[in-house]
Amino acid sequence: MSTDTTPLSSTSRTTLRRHRERGKTDRADLYAVLDAGLMCHLGVVADGAPLVLPTAYGRDGDTLYVHGSSANGAFGAADGQQVCVSVTHLDGFVCARSVFTHSVNYRSAVVFGTASLVIDDDERRHALEVITDHLIPGRWAAARQPTKKEMAATAVLSLPLTEASVKIRAGMPKDEPADYDLDVWAGVLPVAVTFGEPEPDPLLRSGIELPPHIRDRH
Amino acid sequence: MSTDTTPLSSTSRTTLRRHRERGKTDRADLYAVLDAGLMCHLGVVADGAPLVLPTAYGRDGDTLYVHGSSANGAFGAADGQQVCVSVTHLDGFVCARSVFTHSVNYRSAVVFGTASLVIDDDERRHALEVITDHLIPGRWAAARQPTKKEMAATAVLSLPLTEASVKIRAGMPKDEPADYDLDVWAGVLPVAVTFGEPEPDPLLRSGIELPPHIRDRH
Repeated sequence: MSTDTTPLSSTSRTTLRRHRERGKTDRADLYAVLDAGLMCHLGVVADGAPLVLPTAYGRDGDTLYVHGSSANGAFGAADGQQVCVSVTHLDGFVCARSVFTHSVNYRSAVVFGTASLVIDDDERRHALEVITDHLIPGRWAAARQPTKKEMAATAVLSLPLTEASVKIRAGMPKDEPADYDLDVWAGVLPVAVTFGEPEPDPLLRSGIELPPHIRDRH
Repeated sequence: MSTDTTPLSSTSRTTLRRHRERGKTDRADLYAVLDAGLMCHLGVVADGAPLVLPTAYGRDGDTLYVHGSSANGAFGAADGQQVCVSVTHLDGFVCARSVFTHSVNYRSAVVFGTASLVIDDDERRHALEVITDHLIPGRWAAARQPTKKEMAATAVLSLPLTEASVKIRAGMPKDEPADYDLDVWAGVLPVAVTFGEPEPDPLLRSGIELPPHIRDRH
């Protein structure tokens, strides 16, 4: 795969600085990539080594909330530390005429910053609502609200959206001119995340219909 | 979301050790999660801070190959350093009767180890074939092979599959007994990665049909 189109080569710190200078358009792109995502990958340094954990998140303005558990040591240790949150959409395989120019279409947001454990009860409750409704808008209000004990078992990290890299690749392969004559199929194989038919819990009480916030998410 | 079912709480180092002891079954699970994945998230420590980069990978036996670019400093700096590679499948939203017991169905592999830049030309070529055919089996042989210059611009990290955490959650929500009487819909909203219809490059030479390795991947 070529050096200038893969996600990996695109999210260097150099790129990051370049993007910060570009200003408002980047921020809209950042919001769009984050808001369209479902899960993130949270990177922390634990005992000097990197740890990359998949988890849920949500955005409220320029604050990113990341979901965790009070029982997870690495999560608690992230308080006050530099973390990195990646949200990636794979949109397609870009099949070129040479193996080297193969690539992927993707939208990637990589957010850097110092994480803070959300201590205030009201903010933590708000953050959990943001995270829940990020995954399924309207779900928070539809379910039984958390008890104090349940709230205590849940940890949330907050991260300001001040430093981030957004990279997007779309479209067809860019082959070397001479390669266009080759007898090789080229194009894009699209990839997408899709929702299936909702599966009711077999233990669901009778008479409860599928609510619009689940039906519409689907 | 509950503390014992989210990916984040499940991938602690403690879990990891427990999994290593469980032996062969875990290794089959690890292979299954890695082989079904498309992209990974590579975690490295750069200047003391975590960096999480999405990229392509492939597995050959107990070696994981991760794709990068010679131009990416963070990638090169990972040589000889501890890295973490996460592969995550989101399989569904688990909608419970209380917000706290909400969860996600997922399959997660988190691999830890010391990365090595693949220096040997033959191994690097083999690694790139493994990575390419991981995404689209059969693609490597169908496209124009890399030149020496192209090979030099491509970096590959190898990582032994000796230390990894595999976590899988499937099935319905597990609510508190009293909550089953609530008037709240519960169940699973499935989520999956799907392939769309292949889109030929508008510049594709006439007379080139869609090959089986693209059609079958779809």
